[in-house]
Amino acid sequence: MKSVRRASPLLKQLRTSPIHSRRHNPVVIRISPQQCRRQSSQTQQKATTSATSEPHQPSPEGAKEGATPAPRIKYTTDSYPKLQRDSRFKELTEEHVRYFRDLLGSDNAVVEGVTQDNPDLDGYNADWMRKFRGKSKLVLLPNSTEQVSKVMKYCNDNMLAVVPQGGNTGLVGGSVPVFDEIVLSLSRMNSVRSFDEISGIFVCDAGMILEQADNYLRERGYLFPLDLGAKGSCHVGGNVATNAGGLRLLRYGSLHGSVLGVEAVLPDGTIVDDLSKLRKNNTGYDIKQLFIGGEGTLGVITGVSILAPQECTAVNVAYFGLSSFENVQRAFREAKKHLGEILSAFELMDGGSQNMFSSVSGTSLPLEGKHPFYVLIETRGSNSDHDAEKVEAFLEHVMSSEIVSDGVMAQDGAQQAELWRCREGITETLGHHGGVYKYDLSIPITQLYDLVVEMKQRMQDKGLLGEGKPVVDVVGYGHMGDGNLHLNIATRGWDKEVEKVLEPFVYEWVGERQGSISAEHGLGLSKKDYVGYSKSATMIKLMKQLKDLYDPNGIMNPYKYI
Amino acid sequence: MKSVRRASPLLKQLRTSPIHSRRHNPVVIRISPQQCRRQSSQTQQKATTSATSEPHQPSPEGAKEGATPAPRIKYTTDSYPKLQRDSRFKELTEEHVRYFRDLLGSDNAVVEGVTQDNPDLDGYNADWMRKFRGKSKLVLLPNSTEQVSKVMKYCNDNMLAVVPQGGNTGLVGGSVPVFDEIVLSLSRMNSVRSFDEISGIFVCDAGMILEQADNYLRERGYLFPLDLGAKGSCHVGGNVATNAGGLRLLRYGSLHGSVLGVEAVLPDGTIVDDLSKLRKNNTGYDIKQLFIGGEGTLGVITGVSILAPQECTAVNVAYFGLSSFENVQRAFREAKKHLGEILSAFELMDGGSQNMFSSVSGTSLPLEGKHPFYVLIETRGSNSDHDAEKVEAFLEHVMSSEIVSDGVMAQDGAQQAELWRCREGITETLGHHGGVYKYDLSIPITQLYDLVVEMKQRMQDKGLLGEGKPVVDVVGYGHMGDGNLHLNIATRGWDKEVEKVLEPFVYEWVGERQGSISAEHGLGLSKKDYVGYSKSATMIKLMKQLKDLYDPNGIMNPYKYI
Repeated sequence: MKSVRRASPLLKQLRTSPIHSRRHNPVVIRISPQQCRRQSSQTQQKATTSATSEPHQPSPEGAKEGATPAPRIKYTTDSYPKLQRDSRFKELTEEHVRYFRDLLGSDNAVVEGVTQDNPDLDGYNADWMRKFRGKSKLVLLPNSTEQVSKVMKYCNDNMLAVVPQGGNTGLVGGSVPVFDEIVLSLSRMNSVRSFDEISGIFVCDAGMILEQADNYLRERGYLFPLDLGAKGSCHVGGNVATNAGGLRLLRYGSLHGSVLGVEAVLPDGTIVDDLSKLRKNNTGYDIKQLFIGGEGTLGVITGVSILAPQECTAVNVAYFGLSSFENVQRAFREAKKHLGEILSAFELMDGGSQNMFSSVSGTSLPLEGKHPFYVLIETRGSNSDHDAEKVEAFLEHVMSSEIVSDGVMAQDGAQQAELWRCREGITETLGHHGGVYKYDLSIPITQLYDLVVEMKQRMQDKGLLGEGKPVVDVVGYGHMGDGNLHLNIATRGWDKEVEKVLEPFVYEWVGERQGSISAEHGLGLSKKDYVGYSKSATMIKLMKQLKDLYDPNGIMNPYKYI
Repeated sequence: MKSVRRASPLLKQLRTSPIHSRRHNPVVIRISPQQCRRQSSQTQQKATTSATSEPHQPSPEGAKEGATPAPRIKYTTDSYPKLQRDSRFKELTEEHVRYFRDLLGSDNAVVEGVTQDNPDLDGYNADWMRKFRGKSKLVLLPNSTEQVSKVMKYCNDNMLAVVPQGGNTGLVGGSVPVFDEIVLSLSRMNSVRSFDEISGIFVCDAGMILEQADNYLRERGYLFPLDLGAKGSCHVGGNVATNAGGLRLLRYGSLHGSVLGVEAVLPDGTIVDDLSKLRKNNTGYDIKQLFIGGEGTLGVITGVSILAPQECTAVNVAYFGLSSFENVQRAFREAKKHLGEILSAFELMDGGSQNMFSSVSGTSLPLEGKHPFYVLIETRGSNSDHDAEKVEAFLEHVMSSEIVSDGVMAQDGAQQAELWRCREGITETLGHHGGVYKYDLSIPITQLYDLVVEMKQRMQDKGLLGEGKPVVDVVGYGHMGDGNLHLNIATRGWDKEVEKVLEPFVYEWVGERQGSISAEHGLGLSKKDYVGYSKSATMIKLMKQLKDLYDPNGIMNPYKYI
């Protein structure tokens, strides 16, 4: 009874005491999640990252990376000196460029540096993290699937390697060339093809920007079943090609379920016309699935058909402190039980990550006192009264049963953004002391946090952690609802000793538990060599077999994936 | 205001007037959906079908099929005389049988008719609809993935064709042999492998019966994200192999989204160990997707990992009359808007289907008066008060805006079953007059009902419809929420003239609208020749390429699919 009494007044108090009154320094909460989003892929300044768009590895520049713009990005071939250009690929000639100019017609469909120096190529050659930089001398911007088909056929016939590029917001170096591959940008193919307001089935070109697609759907009472930090510049086709996860996966599932159809072009120019607008169609192998998460290594996605869910008008966000990871798991179980169909996010932040966020950003946390774990819960539903009641009943339950130690609930959209900021702001603050080693992992939920504990112990045992030592802290946070952990090691700089403790230990640890070394960001260039920790030799062999089947010349996004 | 006034008292009246008081003959509602479910695949009597397990074509016996058990099922090779045995396949010898006995050890792991006549083979050779019958002389029942692997390798090395068989509840002849293929039954592999109560991730052998898996999960507060009429005998592995749709698709999505991992054995014995227990894993091509809906033509599924959702404790069922298909579409749109996250079924029944159900079964429909269209809506959520309020608000809206003409809402589980009976009972009653031609189609929702109207007109124009004519009625019903129409032509018997009007018209009509000629039942043997109406020549070529890649000898489930 004691705990019940304790919980109820607290809930009431919270509901009448908006969290902004507890903030010591209101001006420090200055970046909203929306502002975090990048506005254009062509703006190559260091962008603010969100929780779902963070690099896994520190940049080669090491300490204070991003604090001031680096003058010049290192070539990928310098960072990865073992990479060798595939000699089967032809080098570009003026004749090739002429062919493409004739084919694509318009001047702005071809950006070339074959006949002249061309600084416009830089934005296509480098990634937004300033970590990867290729040496392409040709960017093609077709405006139709037929043009893509002709481009691919010519490239295949002439052994010219190709990198498909969407919004170029990837995190593993998958969307930029390594050597002189042709960049095939989908950005001119950016139209809605159809939308059925009854079924919610939406079809668009691959080059449509995710936020534009989402806005189009919101105006019609629907939403795109995917959301992520880079939505202002990433492309729908790129999202599908990388099987992007993001912020709505817990609620709307993966793209393997929501994507109904894909139109893609194979290396030989074949148009894979699998752009179904049907929810159910059991007439053969579901070939489109190979392009979802195929990272442009089998073909170029040119169109996407997807099932858009109804927009949810009621949103609730709550933030808790918890005493143990066991209680975090219990809270997750209870959240699923009480919030069921409206639970849209269950985000874990450990004490270390929240302390660093608070101290670096100068923001007071929403709760008084320290807690070993914090959880952010979001609900999205169709009825605000019902949802508020559900959340309240959930809160009462988890507080009266002492699963949760303390909690607050946002009263309006601004407070929701403030609570989300405690989760999304972690990424920026972790790099404050110099560098940060980042891993994006899937781990069975019961063991999710063990890795953080073990890694912290390892760093301590090696005398690497603490005041005056290389490692500032080892923290864990992430999309707990999806079993997705972001393990982060905040350091005072790039440090070989730290790296030896980290790798291959992290990959081995994840591999032994049948986890994933890349939960949502894909393989690209940076994870290519580690796939063996998450996939067996048999699976890798089967993957290579598919690659050889669809791309026998190996021209599609070479040097990456497998 | 007038319509608002009209709606509210009606709703109140309905809520205080339970529907059973309106029933003229209460005893006729005698079969619950549960009772409809088949209890065992080995019981080869004509089973009662549910809405999701209905044959598309009349049985070759024609009129009154199923009224009395047929003495002997026709061989598939007699029904499909064009089929020729593939001469590349070896015929079974006593030596083969010895090998399998040595390999599988136990006596009940081998059912053979090579050295002796064996009536136990009959149940494996024939399908439950009594429409297909093969001539296999050997059934193998391995009890481990390793045994399956060894069986497959031996069969591949010795050119012995194989049909994987689950619960043998399919509707297109996919799970029984045509000639003398070996039947590989998964029924002895029926254990739960693991369940994570926190994440809801469930892993089981392929041979586990769906209902057992669902019961296991319900005891733990979860449920299997798939439900269908044959749940008492179908296998989870068979469900995945056929990408079964069923009753929960609108709510929980397709198996392509909910299945997290598959373990399968390729023809050469390779074990595809893709049994991931992770929600997110972006480390390579999603190869398991090819086995989902591959109908056992690429390999044998031996294990399944799936994300189980929380069980929903609150269930509401309502039944409406509507004046036009336009209003049905508007009601669907409003249901999605008002019921959003809790809408679990939106089933369409046209007036013809309900009239026939009523007159044949002697059941009064729940609504007084006749309506051109009827809709059954089900919600499943975590809070009964909230859900009832949502449903009520939805009802008020659709009735006050005259989208819906009349409606009732069930007050308890028994009444819910009665309302469902109006939907699920259609199948049985349609065959009453002699025969019934059935099609399971996906059609863009806006055009969903046009086919029924056109087909009725065609039958009328040809003088085939009406009193004393072959066709009793042309009706449409189905999973409207999934865009899935069941077009049914109830006849007084098997009729060549009717068939000429039906085919290829139905397939052409669906093909022209980019629909699917098999929404949820797959291709098997009976749809093999029609896949071209739903898939382009390019897609068929790509499918054949995959078949050749994984099964170069063509031993897996031959004569079917592609």
